[in-house]
Formats: sequence, structure tokens, C-alpha cells
Amino acid sequence: MYSLNVREHFMIAHSFKGEIFGPAQRMHGATYVVDLEMRRPQLDDDGLVVDIGLASQQLAAVLADLNYQNLDEVPEFAGKNTTTEFLAAVIFDRIAARISAGELGPAARGLTTMKVTLHESHIAWAAFEGDLPA
Amino acid sequence: MYSLNVREHFMIAHSFKGEIFGPAQRMHGATYVVDLEMRRPQLDDDGLVVDIGLASQQLAAVLADLNYQNLDEVPEFAGKNTTTEFLAAVIFDRIAARISAGELGPAARGLTTMKVTLHESHIAWAAFEGDLPA
Amino acid sequence: MYSLNVREHFMIAHSFKGEIFGPAQRMHGATYVVDLEMRRPQLDDDGLVVDIGLASQQLAAVLADLNYQNLDEVPEFAGKNTTTEFLAAVIFDRIAARISAGELGPAARGLTTMKVTLHESHIAWAAFEGDLPA
Amino acid sequence: MYSLNVREHFMIAHSFKGEIFGPAQRMHGATYVVDLEMRRPQLDDDGLVVDIGLASQQLAAVLADLNYQNLDEVPEFAGKNTTTEFLAAVIFDRIAARISAGELGPAARGLTTMKVTLHESHIAWAAFEGDLPA
Amino acid sequence: MYSLNVREHFMIAHSFKGEIFGPAQRMHGATYVVDLEMRRPQLDDDGLVVDIGLASQQLAAVLADLNYQNLDEVPEFAGKNTTTEFLAAVIFDRIAARISAGELGPAARGLTTMKVTLHESHIAWAAFEGDLPA
Amino acid sequence: MYSLNVREHFMIAHSFKGEIFGPAQRMHGATYVVDLEMRRPQLDDDGLVVDIGLASQQLAAVLADLNYQNLDEVPEFAGKNTTTEFLAAVIFDRIAARISAGELGPAARGLTTMKVTLHESHIAWAAFEGDLPA
Repeated sequence: MYSLNVREHFMIAHSFKGEIFGPAQRMHGATYVVDLEMRRPQLDDDGLVVDIGLASQQLAAVLADLNYQNLDEVPEFAGKNTTTEFLAAVIFDRIAARISAGELGPAARGLTTMKVTLHESHIAWAAFEGDLPA
Repeated sequence: MYSLNVREHFMIAHSFKGEIFGPAQRMHGATYVVDLEMRRPQLDDDGLVVDIGLASQQLAAVLADLNYQNLDEVPEFAGKNTTTEFLAAVIFDRIAARISAGELGPAARGLTTMKVTLHESHIAWAAFEGDLPA
Repeated sequence: MYSLNVREHFMIAHSFKGEIFGPAQRMHGATYVVDLEMRRPQLDDDGLVVDIGLASQQLAAVLADLNYQNLDEVPEFAGKNTTTEFLAAVIFDRIAARISAGELGPAARGLTTMKVTLHESHIAWAAFEGDLPA
Repeated sequence: MYSLNVREHFMIAHSFKGEIFGPAQRMHGATYVVDLEMRRPQLDDDGLVVDIGLASQQLAAVLADLNYQNLDEVPEFAGKNTTTEFLAAVIFDRIAARISAGELGPAARGLTTMKVTLHESHIAWAAFEGDLPA
Repeated sequence: MYSLNVREHFMIAHSFKGEIFGPAQRMHGATYVVDLEMRRPQLDDDGLVVDIGLASQQLAAVLADLNYQNLDEVPEFAGKNTTTEFLAAVIFDRIAARISAGELGPAARGLTTMKVTLHESHIAWAAFEGDLPA
Repeated sequence: MYSLNVREHFMIAHSFKGEIFGPAQRMHGATYVVDLEMRRPQLDDDGLVVDIGLASQQLAAVLADLNYQNLDEVPEFAGKNTTTEFLAAVIFDRIAARISAGELGPAARGLTTMKVTLHESHIAWAAFEGDLPA
């Protein structure tokens, strides 16, 4: 199995609902350093997992929609705790949709699985990984 | 599959038995930077893999029992080489026991697999991963 | 010249005023990973720059006052842009005051200079450094 | 499952063929920081995944054959794009052959899977992983 | 003294002249991860060392002129060994010229010193630092 | 001012004397990841701060004398607390002696200052820096 990983980051504000969150129930924020790992069993005809330029651009585009936002005010996230693990799955889905739409190039349809990791500090990170539609 | 990782460290002395260890047969020591990764297929009702505060506390508690010890004098390790990979499994088992005992909170019982990685330097690390009891 | 560095982090929300900040004029946030470096020309009688336990505790205490805050609502920062470089100087001053008050131990009065670095992402950081009062 | 990872690096020149590579069609180069991860379900009699000294030496030996080379002039790679993901598989195969030949010690035959990751910058890396012959 | 650091990278091929370089006399290459640190004694009116957006853009622009090049064919470097430390000074000079030309904004003229660090691997880096013209 | 940095590590056991050290009064140990930074105002005739191969070898040789040792049993350290900051100065002195003896090559006599940093964990490090004899 081959994999390729690209890294980008975004910065947001949010607050959490639930006693379990303690002081994180207050409005606060985070820098998320995002690792996008894409996997496939065989390389494409160019010897690539995916076009790294397109992958970086598309990751940047997905993160631009979240960057410098107060996530408490994003309608799509209403009633949700935008935890690190939750956001990892959101970004996974958005990248998966772009792959399906051909925005990472036609060869990217050969990708079979993907993992999105969000580093919230030097001592904590969370991830979501799963299959990509065939 | 979702995952959450927290990081802590501990510092110990030990020596190894067996010619294969060369100079590491002498009393020496290590800083181990520990990554504890916990995984589950669905988030809990708060949108979490596990309560990160409890996870960090319990990892710190497990490492506190090892920290600033000469592992050659720990009865439980008598007759064993406390290699990095061996210690990864020890810490795995101790965290797993705390999860079973409910010390990471009731929702932590939804965790299905776990990985413990010990970094012994900038160029070497070892890990143990496995399933958690249902 | 000897130096000792300890690392901690905090997570905040804030917004900036001024066209130069572009989208960062919106409410957003950051994780700041903080490096506190303390320097002195000679070690103390224990062979230390400073008691690392006390230094870590006091850094954590200073950051706890900022952690999980919306800095736009902190009276002390009213009318200020709480940029990374500005916050580095704020933390410098607060640690310096604790050193003067003896909270890092009596030997910490031998410290002569200090540097506070705030990492806001994997690609950007800012710092403030200066002399400590004799 | 246990794993052990060792890190080394090498520096090469190369160029790529295909419009998709844009400016990377020109002669350029890279530093690759290589992580070699070896896995097995049980430790050997010494409590090891593999002799870390031998593993480091053999990784260094494999990379020495590539280090300071212009890969465009290496006959084995003629007609291939020596992308990061391609090189990860090349190094995987060469390490696997050395394991089979006994060069990582007899206990290394207990290794079951392996992963080779090449970091080409702070924001991009690629890997190949697979089973080792029984 | 305040400082701000931004990070970017570039990838080149080159060879060195002189027995001291051993195998690095052959055509090879490197990824250089570049840290640009800019310093000034007082923040500007916006609370900044320098506009981080402009600083990142200008660093990227300077590195784009070197990226994906065979430095042996760059006329400006004829007869020079393009060592890591040499390249650090080249990039320093090019950024300094852009600061003088106003390309980092008018406030950047308040910068007094600068440091450029090039990381060539996880175990080696080199830097050039110096004053900026008043 | 130019600088060059090389990185190596060593692993030791030791214990400290003095109540201030708390549990570190027990026999324990550490991995120290060492950064050796050497500086000079002008490059040598080859465009170098120092021969990086010789610098790496000499750093490795100095650390080999400490590696896999119980520092409590090293006669030279009798009656001393071998703290991170103390060890940074020890290594500084030993490298400085090798520079004076010509073991980093004749051009290394152009080095003017040096800094030795010892990382004891992901959150703590200490350093000693000073002038080199002319």
C-alpha cells in the first residue's frame, strides 16, 4: 500500500457544550495543523499516489472555508461540538467529495483509503480515517 | 475510525542482559516520550473519542509509577529486558486495565483499539498496539 | 551563558483591528505552544539554571490565566491587538514579575535574561526577549 | 502487534518526466528523511522486535547506495519517475531482501510487515508498506 | 527585542568542488526548510514585528527563484560552492533588498536584525544572521 | 554571523543530590538529543563554517565517552550534579578542546563562538554557549 501526506493549517474560535468540557465551554480557539494522508495499492501511470500540487491546493481550499471562523456561528455545525475528532471527519468528507468530483485529477479516483489528522497542540491530536468510495 | 492521541514522558534507568545489547548491557537510561492513541468507530454523545482530560491524567498516572525509577529494581520486571518495545506493551496493559476499571470515564468503554508508542530518541521509537476488550 | 527552556501551551479566541489583518479581523483563535528560555552566566549551587519544577509550574500558572479565554473580553487588553508578538511580551512580563516575587525560588534571582517564544503553527512563531531586573 | 522504527536520511538529484510535474521536470533534488518501521506479533527471546543496531546499519547501507546520486543516471531507474512514493517502495524491497538474506539477524525473520516513509519536506511525505515473506 | 519567524522550503540540485566534500562532489540535491526570523526593538502601530502575510509572500517569492533549480547552472553562483551556509547568506541578502525596496510594507523598515536558517536534514542546519541597514 | 548545527544523542543513568530534585534523587536516566552549533563571522575558503563530516564525527566521539554510562560512577563528575545544563557545559569544553587540537580541521580555528543544547524531553532542554579561544 502506498500513501502520500500533505500538511496545512487553519485557525478558528469555538466553544463546547457539556460539563465534560470544563473551561473549554468558554469561547476559545485553536490552531489545527492538518495532515491529509491518501492511500492506494498501486501507483498511477506517472508513478504517483496523487498529484501533490492538486492535493495541496484542494486541502488548502477546504481549510480556507474554515479558517478564521467562529465555528459556533457556522450553520452547518449548529448543535454540534466541533471537537478535534469531529472536525477531522468533516474535513475527510469534504476532501472525499472533491476527489469524487475530480478536483484532485482523474488518477485520484484510484485512491482507496484516506486519513485526516488534526494536531491541536504539541501534545494532542485526533484523526478520522476511512474508505473512499470506489 | 476515529482516534485521539495524547503525549507525556518519563525518565528511567535500566540495563539489558544479552550480548546483542553491546554497551547497553551497562547501567544507562532513557527519556521516553509516550504517545497514547485510542480508537473507536463512532464518537460518543459529546462528540469525543474519550475525555482528553481524563486520558491525559490516566496516562500521567501510569507513567508516574515508572518515572525516575531504576527498572532493574522493579520486581515486576525481574528477569526481563525492559526494552522500548517491552515497555510499550506494559503501558498498553496498564492503560487498558484503567479503561476497564472505568477510570477514563464510562464512554471510554467504546474504545476498540489502542496504540502506545515510546520515542527513545529523535531517530528511534517502538510501539505496541492491539484490541481492547469489548 | 547557560539557559534552560520549558514548554507549555494555551488556546484562545481573539480578533484583530486593522485592515492589514484581512480575514483575521474576524473572531478566530489559536493554539500557542510557548517556550520559556531563562539564562544566567553561572549555575546555582545545585548545578541549575533554575528549579525546572518551579519554572514549569509558574509558566503553567501564567498561561492558565489566558487559557480558554476570548482575549477580546480581557480588560487588560482593551484597545490592543493581541498578536503573537504582543502576547509574547505579556507573558515575559508576567514571568519576570513572578521571578522578582520569588515564586521561581530564591536562586532564580540569578537569572539575567529571558526569552518567550509563541508558536502559532508549524510555520510561524514570534518571540520577545530582554533583560531581567538585577 | 509490536513495531520498531529507525530514522536515517539521504540526499539526491533527479528530474521527472510528464507535464503533471511542472517545474519538477527540471533537474532538482531532495533530502529524504527515511523512517523504517518493522512489525511482528511477538517479541523475540531478547525482548526485541529486531536488533536496533543491525536495523540502523542495514538502513544506512541501503541509503548509502542512493546517497549523493543523480537518480536520472542510475540504470535501474531508467524510464521511471523516481517520485517519493516510488523510492519508498524501492527501499522497502531492498530492506526486505536484506532481511531474507539474514543481514538483520536470524530473529528478524519473525518480522511480518514493514513500512518505509520518506519525508521530502516539513509538509510532505510518502510511504510504502506491505507484508514481508514468511 | 521582538522577533517573528516564518517557514518555507525549496528543493535544488547542486555539486561541490573540493576534496573536503567527498561524495558531495557528485551531482546530488537537497530540500532546504527555511526559517526567516526578523527582529526589532519595538512593535509597529498595529502591534506587529512585520505583516506576516507579506513576509510569507516575499520569502516564498525569493525561494521560488531557487526552487527546482540545478544551482550549478545559475550564473550568479558560478565558481562558488552553494553550501547551506552560503545559501543562507544569499537568501538573507535577497530578503534584505526586498525590505529596503518596501516590499514587506513600510513598517518593515523598523526591522533591525534578521536571521535565515536552512535545515538540510533532521540532523543538520546552517544559518546567517546580521544587521539590516537603518 | 554564520552558524552550522549538527545533532546527535546519548543515553545515560544518574541521580541527583539535594532536596530540590525530589524524585530525581533516585537513580533514573535520560536520552539527551544534542545540538552543536558553531559560529564564525566569515566562511572559510570552501564556503563552510566547518567540515560537517568532521564536526559530526567529533561530536559523536565526545558523546560516545558518555553514552551508556552511569554518570554517578564517572570519577570526573564526583560530587557534582550532572544536570542537563552542567552536561551542556561539559560537552562544550570537550568539543572546544578538540577544536583547539585541530581535530575539526585547520579551518575550524576560525570558529568564534559555540552553543551546545541538550534536549531531555519534548518539553525541556538546556544549553551552554560561549566564546572559543582565538
